[in-house]
Amino acid sequence: MEVDLDSFSARDWEEPTDAEPIRFAMVGLGWWTRELSIPAVEGADHCTTTALVSSSTEKAEDVAADLEGIEATLTYDEWADGAATDAYDAVYICTPNGLHRDNVESAAAHDKAVLCEKPLEATVEDARATVDACRDADVPLMVAYRLQTEPVARRARELIQSGAIGDVVSIVGHMSDNILDAVDESSWRFDPDLAGGTTLNDIGIYPLNTIRFILEEDPQAVYARTESEQPAYEGTDEHGAFQLEFPGGKLASCTVTHSATVTSSLRFVGTEGELTVEGLFFPNTRKVLRVSGPDIEGEFRPEPVDQMREEFDYFANRLQNGLDPEPDGEHGMVDMRVIRALYESAESGQRVELDL
Amino acid sequence: MEVDLDSFSARDWEEPTDAEPIRFAMVGLGWWTRELSIPAVEGADHCTTTALVSSSTEKAEDVAADLEGIEATLTYDEWADGAATDAYDAVYICTPNGLHRDNVESAAAHDKAVLCEKPLEATVEDARATVDACRDADVPLMVAYRLQTEPVARRARELIQSGAIGDVVSIVGHMSDNILDAVDESSWRFDPDLAGGTTLNDIGIYPLNTIRFILEEDPQAVYARTESEQPAYEGTDEHGAFQLEFPGGKLASCTVTHSATVTSSLRFVGTEGELTVEGLFFPNTRKVLRVSGPDIEGEFRPEPVDQMREEFDYFANRLQNGLDPEPDGEHGMVDMRVIRALYESAESGQRVELDL
Repeated sequence: MEVDLDSFSARDWEEPTDAEPIRFAMVGLGWWTRELSIPAVEGADHCTTTALVSSSTEKAEDVAADLEGIEATLTYDEWADGAATDAYDAVYICTPNGLHRDNVESAAAHDKAVLCEKPLEATVEDARATVDACRDADVPLMVAYRLQTEPVARRARELIQSGAIGDVVSIVGHMSDNILDAVDESSWRFDPDLAGGTTLNDIGIYPLNTIRFILEEDPQAVYARTESEQPAYEGTDEHGAFQLEFPGGKLASCTVTHSATVTSSLRFVGTEGELTVEGLFFPNTRKVLRVSGPDIEGEFRPEPVDQMREEFDYFANRLQNGLDPEPDGEHGMVDMRVIRALYESAESGQRVELDL
Repeated sequence: MEVDLDSFSARDWEEPTDAEPIRFAMVGLGWWTRELSIPAVEGADHCTTTALVSSSTEKAEDVAADLEGIEATLTYDEWADGAATDAYDAVYICTPNGLHRDNVESAAAHDKAVLCEKPLEATVEDARATVDACRDADVPLMVAYRLQTEPVARRARELIQSGAIGDVVSIVGHMSDNILDAVDESSWRFDPDLAGGTTLNDIGIYPLNTIRFILEEDPQAVYARTESEQPAYEGTDEHGAFQLEFPGGKLASCTVTHSATVTSSLRFVGTEGELTVEGLFFPNTRKVLRVSGPDIEGEFRPEPVDQMREEFDYFANRLQNGLDPEPDGEHGMVDMRVIRALYESAESGQRVELDL
């Protein structure tokens, strides 16, 4: 495979279109939607925000006051009942994980395409129902893995798939942040029923899914260990370490924590070299991709993109062209099963084989 | 703790001395001794090589022919019987792991200080006997963890211990090489009885021991997975991934393989920043230490040192001053028990708690 590093950040997925921008209903107005998703769409090429759905009319109107082009501000009940469905074409769902299913089912009932935040749901069973609802209603469902439209992750994948470092043997990944800087202890993220788990679930999914995306393979067995120290993490996981076994003896080792400095890294070691990316998992930071080995040497520091904007524009551009967006629900189901296995393993202290 | 980064590679352990150089018998003349240890001592300040011990007189004489100052060339039997004990002061033991005990017992019987390659032996029981032999004979025993006199590892330790990145939360490590470039399939390294294990044992010990050294703590529980692909690795381990649980919820994840590009890395993530080292585990390569965080930023690329020279000079300088060299046998015993636990875990698929 030829890897075009000169146009490193080009949108290799973008299709020309004369279609109108896709009009989004933003369902769930927490900090991620307000601070990242809505600003991303404000500067997007292929989409716009026209409806806001929240727990109260006041909250939706407060957010709308700072925006142009909002046609509807709805409560969850109003949106579920089908109010103002003419005001939007697609929905972005960023509620607590355990409310995804209800909201996706509403979107499917209204015949709207869905961009749903990851992980799909709080349990494998509810995730399955979420995916099935979209399939039965024949509406597109994309799971919001923003790394899959991050140019650095896409170039890493092309390099690995083209054999730039030979056969991959080992992978190591890390992601950390301090979530209590962004949310307080009452957040749903610390409630296992609403979240499905905290650190492995919330940020373990980044190295997990990005390694799957870059290798184009799924784990066959896993092991995990979790630790909790601060009171907010009572009954859930603050720090985690996990292993993923990929086909052909490839072993991945990852660490994640919601209570450390903000940093992330990913390293693929192959028979002919290695590829590393620093800073990959955060939405607006500088990324550094390095490739090195006996016959290859390079360092790339492309201008950062807004990962959320790339994701929204990709999803919208696919809809404009009548194409199914990816990653789809079945792709998201694999992570649901892997994460369940990670928590099972952390509970039992045993390796868990997956039957995917 | 004040960290003196200006004199990054200075020998902070070196004591002034008027003593004569320590005269070494090199026991075991495999590629590591010939290509790394003997050249290191040729340029050393505090020691010299005066005796060579090998499987045959011819082999020892062949090696001696290229060196100055060799006073004795001995077979293993001659050396065990106490030939030419006046020709050397201390011994460096670099035989197959499973022969360490016999050779260390000989050295102890001859009242010679011992620098023994790591791991101490092929089994915990033989390692225990090895350490006890030196204790009973009252001869100094140092285990040859050359990273503990590597200036970059020492500066990393000072930075971490001084709180430069806050409290450590996550650690990730990797080491890989292609051992079949250096030895052939008949090497003792692939024989579990003589080696005690292959990849986890041979190079897993680098991240394991260096993390212990830098944290100044020992693992409390472990998990490991191994994989083997090539015929040379039938019945032993080619690739490995392991987790180490340190006190206070610190989790370390490591990958190692004897069948990939030559590379190594180590990353400590803390509450206030992170510290990474590239290239740490190889004896003569360029190392890069980076520290970053909200209140700290630095990159250090000191001139590489010869790790084996630093190790030999440290050991010799301690003896010249009548001081005990470290790391001692008890320190090496911890790795023996951890590595046994890693293989137990790889066999059972279960987390193994350590009672150290």
